[in-house]
This record gives sequence, structure tokens and C-alpha cells, in this order.
Amino acid sequence: MKGYVFHGPGQSAWEDVPDPGIQDATDAIVRVDAVTICGTDLHILKGDVPEVRSGTVLGHEAVGEIVEIGADVRTVRPGDRVLVSCITACGRCHYCRERAYGQCRGGGGWILGHLIDGTQAEYVRVPHADLSVYVLPGAVESKDAVLLADIFPTAYEVGVLNGRVRPGDTVAVVGAGPIGLAAIATAHLFAPERIVAVDLAAPRLEAAKRLGADAVADAREEPEQLIADLTDGLGADVVVEAVGVPESFEMCTRMVRPGGHVANVGVHGRPATLHLEDLWIKNVTITTGLVDTYSTPTLLRMAAAGRLPTSALVTHVLPLEHMEEAYDVFARAADTGALKVVLGGPQHDVVAVRAA
Amino acid sequence: MKGYVFHGPGQSAWEDVPDPGIQDATDAIVRVDAVTICGTDLHILKGDVPEVRSGTVLGHEAVGEIVEIGADVRTVRPGDRVLVSCITACGRCHYCRERAYGQCRGGGGWILGHLIDGTQAEYVRVPHADLSVYVLPGAVESKDAVLLADIFPTAYEVGVLNGRVRPGDTVAVVGAGPIGLAAIATAHLFAPERIVAVDLAAPRLEAAKRLGADAVADAREEPEQLIADLTDGLGADVVVEAVGVPESFEMCTRMVRPGGHVANVGVHGRPATLHLEDLWIKNVTITTGLVDTYSTPTLLRMAAAGRLPTSALVTHVLPLEHMEEAYDVFARAADTGALKVVLGGPQHDVVAVRAA
Repeated sequence: MKGYVFHGPGQSAWEDVPDPGIQDATDAIVRVDAVTICGTDLHILKGDVPEVRSGTVLGHEAVGEIVEIGADVRTVRPGDRVLVSCITACGRCHYCRERAYGQCRGGGGWILGHLIDGTQAEYVRVPHADLSVYVLPGAVESKDAVLLADIFPTAYEVGVLNGRVRPGDTVAVVGAGPIGLAAIATAHLFAPERIVAVDLAAPRLEAAKRLGADAVADAREEPEQLIADLTDGLGADVVVEAVGVPESFEMCTRMVRPGGHVANVGVHGRPATLHLEDLWIKNVTITTGLVDTYSTPTLLRMAAAGRLPTSALVTHVLPLEHMEEAYDVFARAADTGALKVVLGGPQHDVVAVRAA
Repeated sequence: MKGYVFHGPGQSAWEDVPDPGIQDATDAIVRVDAVTICGTDLHILKGDVPEVRSGTVLGHEAVGEIVEIGADVRTVRPGDRVLVSCITACGRCHYCRERAYGQCRGGGGWILGHLIDGTQAEYVRVPHADLSVYVLPGAVESKDAVLLADIFPTAYEVGVLNGRVRPGDTVAVVGAGPIGLAAIATAHLFAPERIVAVDLAAPRLEAAKRLGADAVADAREEPEQLIADLTDGLGADVVVEAVGVPESFEMCTRMVRPGGHVANVGVHGRPATLHLEDLWIKNVTITTGLVDTYSTPTLLRMAAAGRLPTSALVTHVLPLEHMEEAYDVFARAADTGALKVVLGGPQHDVVAVRAA
């Protein structure tokens, strides 16, 4: 089969790789019908995630059809159309029993396209299939469902729920890429007073408005002041960090009100400065997190009911074998306007190519 | 009267100051019967708290008797024996209504010995007296009660409650000074599996054992490894930072398990490095805070019932007029073994001088 293989920083290709097979009795093999590229994949290509070995097939988000299962798989069978979650869960370890699947110590966690071959291929082996794939409601198209493999649960759990957004809050979302936009969309479910989106790119701020931001601010133009002006000088109740660089994290800690929350979602490659000389007295809560995907079943129901604006985030749909082009479109988002780029193969239900 | 006056960094004296009088209808004047010195006072003397003006009487902890009240004071009257809390609360602002009294925007918060004259004097004016002093149960001695003005509610609220200590947890307390010791004592109320105290000073680690630490570690000898060994390599569920320097905060973030909590209690004068490149994926919650003192009534009831080990923290009791000596004893804690130094005047119920 074909897969998109990492060959060390800056080197990758869509190339022939061995077909995956059942290795453990809890495995399933999934034919990939829709897959997408994550900002984390770009981090890997830059060399920011050193535990990814050369030769690994990338990708941790997919929708597809089960084609084979191991002897111990109980809840799915060949022919089922499933979401392949970015988080694999053994279901048996201390963390899985506390529904912290992202921290699974039984061989799960974020492993696809990280520690084992991932989803950017024609087929993928999914360990611990019973707890790591979700049968899809028929009402959800593959190109929409694939956004529930990572970005929607991540934005919702790590941003909105960890940040404890409540009715009447002022919520600032720093970074209006796909994760930030999904945070805006899901923060809305809690009836905040206002959502302020911050980014460097005007098209992303426009997208933020479409997804429900009440105000937007250019990150270069003192967005802290806008937040202060909107909140009687206090600051935002909740600030979601959806970029992953020290500067944006530090901006978040300047935007939050005393007693407020900073929810870090960004994947960071460098340390940030924590200004405890200002923050020690402010009753601030800072959270970090890898998604646990405990919200995935709920989000799937909401998507099936048409209550998540998944389609608004898909700017490009390409055939699966156009993976290299898709990476290029996604990496040059500032020029191409790409948010999520979804790929589907010839046997798939997504084959239309939209213009950028 | 006499008071302990800050005259800029490194300069202070027990000297004549004007008697305080009622300025606002919500004020009370309290005759100080017992007072203590806080690590924060030493920070002020070092110049770390620049908003303290030269000429300010220091101190934010006291027990005493109401001698005069303003026309609008309703809940206390002259003759009442009261605890003067480190936090003053207007009771009317947004934050007070959410019981975040430490963040009061109506003229309260931490103001005593900070923005206005404090308690290290023969008399003190307490604004917003109805919400800022607490009538003391007769069963609590003044030298014990004065520990409930700051260190017990601070350690309990900002350390133990913000850190969400739960039964079965491994709790690490970094810094075994008075605040750390009070955190150990109040963490015990939640039946943790074990409490590990970390400090540089052997006498403080001995005190930690007396207050209930199950294990102790020298901060220079890789306490992270001890924590890892005790927790199957995971780390502590809750880590309380009770020092206030970047090194100790950073140590706390290395000790916490995935999904755990770091509760910062220390007063910091410098920024710390937050290793987001490690922490982003670990589901860690970091909290900071100034005490709100919402727990003070509860802690007073517990002290009256003999359920708080306040006496174990009082190593020195001196007459009020020995303030300069008391500061010396407290500042040289490494030599004197001082934990809390309590002072009482000649009219007071604490006059015995204990040996160091």
C-alpha cells in the first residue's frame, strides 16, 4: 500500500510501505476513507517531536472501514464505518480507569503516527480497537467526522472544559487555526458573554468571526488592551492558548483576570517564562493537556445532530494520493487559506476537489 | 503608640507613631494583643514588594480587642476579642460576592501592612471591620489564634484546596517553613496516602515529621527521584510550592504526575521557567493565589476543637516591644530554629518567653 512516511526532519514522502496486519488480538485494520493533517504533523516534520522514528507513517486522524479484527475485538466488526481517534486506550490501566485515556500506560495514548504507524496511508492498524475507534452515525459525512478524531475533542476538552468556560464569561482564544476555531465553536455551547479571537492572519480572524467570535484582534496590536477595555480592566475569565509558542502563552497570562483560567492547548517545543512575580497573587489557574477523547461520543452525537460547524473548517478536499500536495497546501496556510485539508482515496466518499 | 515602621529596603524600627483613629464609618480600632511576623514581611524589608511606602507600619496578622468602632459597624463592638485577618473585604464588589475576598476591588484585599498601616503596633485600624475581623472562640489562645490570620487559611486554601488533595493522594510539600508545615497539617485532613516534605534545613524537616509528613527529603538530594520511587515512577498527585523562588517552583513541576496539580503558595519576586515542552502533554494544573480567607470561620472552629496543631508552629513568644529582636530571631531562622514568632504586649495573655 501507499503511506506518508517520515524520514527524519524535513524529509518525508508518499511511498510504498508494507500493508499492516493484525499483530495483537485487540487490533483492528481500518481502510482509510478520509484522513487529515494536523499542526502536530508539521511539528514532527520540523523535528520538534524527537520520539518519532524515521520510517514511521504519520497521521493520527481518520475515518474508514474496518476490514479485519483480532480475536479479542468485541465491539466492532468488518464493514463498520468508524472514526479512528487520535488517542488509543487500553482501558485497563490506572489512567484509562479515570478516563484519562491520553495518559494511557497500557500501550495507548497518542501512539498513531507518533510511536507506531499512523493513518496517512491506505490502511492503518489500530491497537486496542474496542476503545480506540467509534462507530459512526450515518448522518455524519467522513470529511466532517474526521475532525472529531482530534481537533474537536482537543479544543473542547483541553481548551473549553479545562478552562471551565461558563455562561457570561469573556473568553479569549489566542490562535485562530483549526484548534482555536474549534475552541470558539465549542465555547459557544456555554453561552459566554463574548469570545475574542486573536491571531496574526486576517483570514483566520475572518474565519473566527464566522465561527462565532464576537470580537477579533491582531496579535501585534496589543490585544491585552482590547480585552482590558472590554472587561472593565479586569481581563478575560478564560484564555485558550492555541498556538504553541512562548510568546503566545505569555500573552495569555497577561490577558487573564484575577481568578481566571489559562487553558493551554498548543503543542510547545520550547519553555515559556511564567511571570510568577505578577501571577502569584492573582489566583490564576493554568492547565495543560493532551486530549483524553472522553468527549468523543458526545461530540459525535452533536455532529450527527448538525450542532457542530465541522464543514466550516474544511477548506480543501483532495484525493488520498495527493498527500504531498496536501501537506504543501496545509503548511502554506498563510497563502492558501487552508484550515483543515481532508484527503480521501478513490474508493472513498470524498473525492471532490475544492478550490483553495 | 509604638509601631514597627518600614523606612525603605533594609530600614525599619520599633518607634513612636500616631495612634490610629476611625477614618471611615466601617472601621474598627483594635488593641493588638498578639501579633506575628510573616515571611512576606521579610520580603517587604528586602524591597521585593515595591508598593509598600516608606513610613508604613508593617504586619497583617493579629489578635486583639476592639476598642472603638465606626458608626456603620454592625457585627462587632468594643470589648470583643477578635482575629484580625490578613485580608480585608468590602463585601460588596464583584470579587467579594464570589467570596474571592483576597481580590477585593472595594478597598480591601491584602492592605494591612501593605497599602495601609498594619498590625505590628499597639493598635491598628481595620477597615471594613464587619467582614475583616472574626470574634474568637474563648477556647483558642491568642498565640494560637494569630496563626489563623494568614498562614493556616493560606496553606489550606491556596495549597491544599487549590491543589485538590484527595484521599489516597501522594502530596509533596516543597518548603517546610510555617506555610509548608500548615499545608502538611491541613493536607492530613484529606487522608492522603503520604505526604513528602522537602526543604534545605534539617530542623524544618524534623518539624515536618512532627506535623505529619510521612517522608522527608533534602532539596539538594534529588527529591524528584524519591517521589518517583514512591509512586511507581508517576510523580505526586499534588505538589505544594511553599518557598517562592524559581528553583523550587520548577522542582514542583518536575515532581507532579500526569494529571496532577501544582499549587503555588510562595510569594515570588522573579519569573520562573515553565517547561511547556514537557508539560503541554501532561494534563497538569497549576494554580496561584492570594488567600481569600473564606475558610477562616471553619478553621477557627477546628482550632477551638483542638483539631489544628497551631501550638507546634509557635517556637518563640516575646513581649510586643521586643519587635526588633523578634524580627532578628525570625530572619535568622536557620540558626534560631524559629518557625512562628508571636509577640504580645504587657496587657496581653501571652507574655512568657520561650527559649529558642
